[in-house]
Amino acid sequence: MSENNIDTICAPATGNGGAINIIRISGPESIRIADSFFEAKKKGLKLSEAESHTIHFGDIILDNEVLDEVLISIFSGKKSYTGEPSIEISLHASPYILNKTLELIISKGARMAEPGEFSMRAFLNGKLDLAQAEAVGDIIASASKSAHNTAMRQLKGQFSNKLMDLRQQLMDFASLIELELDFAEEEVEFADRNKFKELVHKINTEVSSLIKSFKIGNVLKEGIPVAIIGKPNAGKSTLLNTLLQEDKAIISEIEGTTRDVIEDVININGVLFRFIDTAGIRDSEDVIEKLGIEKTYAKIALANIVLLLLDASEIKTDTDIESQIKTAKLDIDIDQELIIVINKIDKSYSKLINSKYNTVFISAKEKNIEQLENALNAYVEQFNIEDQSIITNARHLEALQNSKDSLDAINNAFEMGIPTDLIAIDVRTCLYHLGSITGQISNDELLGNIFGKFCIGK
Amino acid sequence: MSENNIDTICAPATGNGGAINIIRISGPESIRIADSFFEAKKKGLKLSEAESHTIHFGDIILDNEVLDEVLISIFSGKKSYTGEPSIEISLHASPYILNKTLELIISKGARMAEPGEFSMRAFLNGKLDLAQAEAVGDIIASASKSAHNTAMRQLKGQFSNKLMDLRQQLMDFASLIELELDFAEEEVEFADRNKFKELVHKINTEVSSLIKSFKIGNVLKEGIPVAIIGKPNAGKSTLLNTLLQEDKAIISEIEGTTRDVIEDVININGVLFRFIDTAGIRDSEDVIEKLGIEKTYAKIALANIVLLLLDASEIKTDTDIESQIKTAKLDIDIDQELIIVINKIDKSYSKLINSKYNTVFISAKEKNIEQLENALNAYVEQFNIEDQSIITNARHLEALQNSKDSLDAINNAFEMGIPTDLIAIDVRTCLYHLGSITGQISNDELLGNIFGKFCIGK
Repeated sequence: MSENNIDTICAPATGNGGAINIIRISGPESIRIADSFFEAKKKGLKLSEAESHTIHFGDIILDNEVLDEVLISIFSGKKSYTGEPSIEISLHASPYILNKTLELIISKGARMAEPGEFSMRAFLNGKLDLAQAEAVGDIIASASKSAHNTAMRQLKGQFSNKLMDLRQQLMDFASLIELELDFAEEEVEFADRNKFKELVHKINTEVSSLIKSFKIGNVLKEGIPVAIIGKPNAGKSTLLNTLLQEDKAIISEIEGTTRDVIEDVININGVLFRFIDTAGIRDSEDVIEKLGIEKTYAKIALANIVLLLLDASEIKTDTDIESQIKTAKLDIDIDQELIIVINKIDKSYSKLINSKYNTVFISAKEKNIEQLENALNAYVEQFNIEDQSIITNARHLEALQNSKDSLDAINNAFEMGIPTDLIAIDVRTCLYHLGSITGQISNDELLGNIFGKFCIGK
Repeated sequence: MSENNIDTICAPATGNGGAINIIRISGPESIRIADSFFEAKKKGLKLSEAESHTIHFGDIILDNEVLDEVLISIFSGKKSYTGEPSIEISLHASPYILNKTLELIISKGARMAEPGEFSMRAFLNGKLDLAQAEAVGDIIASASKSAHNTAMRQLKGQFSNKLMDLRQQLMDFASLIELELDFAEEEVEFADRNKFKELVHKINTEVSSLIKSFKIGNVLKEGIPVAIIGKPNAGKSTLLNTLLQEDKAIISEIEGTTRDVIEDVININGVLFRFIDTAGIRDSEDVIEKLGIEKTYAKIALANIVLLLLDASEIKTDTDIESQIKTAKLDIDIDQELIIVINKIDKSYSKLINSKYNTVFISAKEKNIEQLENALNAYVEQFNIEDQSIITNARHLEALQNSKDSLDAINNAFEMGIPTDLIAIDVRTCLYHLGSITGQISNDELLGNIFGKFCIGK
């Protein structure tokens, strides 16, 4: 994992069951290795003399016989994904050819790559920062438009660039402060304290906003938890079925017994929502049922959105809604969004107007659920996810929280008139944590943790 | 499927579960389509102005957002696999990106390719003959060195070229004969009858040898059937276990009940053998067991090789072997190879010398089975598969048999002094069947049958 570890690695980059397989080779020997078994159709052509980003047709020769007719793509050092000389071989998709070619490459001096090793080399060679490399994994796993866009913006360096810029400014102040320490006896101040305070404030604002974005960022990736509450006859199953038919269910998972909580992840206009169908909240003496109800309340507490499903015929005023909330023993947190869903408007038109609640009117049975879908999407839009940097990675959250602790300590130090050398320590700690996000600060264990989760060939 | 059907097609060319996905686009519009959503990193670069066999890094833009960072490879008309302008897009392997990109390509005017359509276009554009295109499918399915090499030689046109050459010579004579028919009243002979007979003989020899090669060609693909016969205590399971450990079992299939026949396909030095473990041959009154024994004899009749496994302590002379063959009621066909396998030489050294049988001495228990493996490989070597053209395709077999019928009819006509116009009909029939193998003669139904078996993206 250190810089002198520059052997040549290889791995298949494609999955099973296609028409072609791709093998990637990266490292100083990759082009020599490919030349050793490749016979180009163009007589006398050597890959080592070919230009970067060109493709060559020819045969792989194994024991004087043609193993396969292939296309070889060449990427010179600086211009490749890894930042090293690289080769991609496009083979006929036979397991036999794939295995024999890998054996051949290894016999010529390469070794099989570890999971994520190509991306780790891209990071070590400065082609990607750490947050960008992590985005590659998220991009591959993205199942919805919003999760995909968030990961793609991270790959494009949107939030890395902002963080690196702020960190650079902090670093400039840090060196001035370190300078002050060298001249401690002369009591000079090279760092303008007001400008410094301003910068710390700016960084703190940015870091806090990123920390806040995690809550939405993470649920965008996994699906925004939506709890559906309602009396047994309120039409919960009909609503879920309608959502499933109108929109696209990604996963339907059933946890444990039927008394437990059922979740369906549904893609509404490119955003994943994780619907938690609460088995039914009512007073019960049955011990097992009581446990089920407790679980339900625990799940409701974790939801971003709570849908209270009510029967239009029973709701005339806000007072009716209030009494239903009381009956359901709902305790809505300030962070949670309560949406009152008035169902069955096909049967009974609700006269409720000017409600203080966020209300929508639907008929699950007649597949008229547009108002509900709009309300769900409006919830997401308030986070302005298209323009804002959003973090989705728990490692980033931890580093940001640590950065924030240091920033708070710096602020505190300013106010308490604490000596410069103590401020310097907090600044260094902050620089460390900010740097660990993009990988300006890294160590082998961290890199092993991050890239070990990648697939082979990435 | 006709030549004027030149729309633009697209399909994924890779399978699931890798680090990258490849989409192929082929047809006159492919480069224009890719240009419409691709933004190269190199400012202002247009794919339509780029050279063939070059690779370009950039973004796919969907609704003013970056859908993915990709590599696009360009293949100009004559130099591509299909013989049409083609594009390959290398994407991050996310199902979301794959689907969105395919939708985007289709929205710009392409359509999803049918299975095998890229290869069919390669055939229609003269990049591959039909037998070569069929070899592509065999290459992908090859699980052993011998099956792979046979398919690769077919892709390289080894037997296509020979057939096309002979067919061309026959065609030259055919035109002379047709000329004679035009001058029928003048009773001239443009075609030298002796040279013509010689050519027909040469073609007949070649065609017969190819027909004969099918038996070995087909079993090389599926595994050469080897029946193991022996008394219950002869050590059949030990032998199979030893083979399975020493060599590589590709498939272990168990058909029906335990009384039925068990098959293990084992790769010995690059050749697949399909071992048929006969449940035990003995007289039985039990009806079900009788049925099992009948099945066993039916399987033995289909085997290329029969191994009679005997206990070294019981075999002193050829007479002992003969009596064991009689006991097992073995009826070895002239096409079949009988190998007498003297087992348990660790316990009792057999004194059998100068046997008229093909005998090998092993100890399955002590994993000393080299003589048996050599004998199995010797069986294959007699077919000289490395130098000879081998057919593995039932369609080719049928066409060759039809060609042979015509050649026999031509020979017959020579001997019977049958008039030239009748010879001409047989020559035309022969030309038709020979031409159907390489696709010089083809029709839509035939092409649909052949390419419909391919996977999407090939």
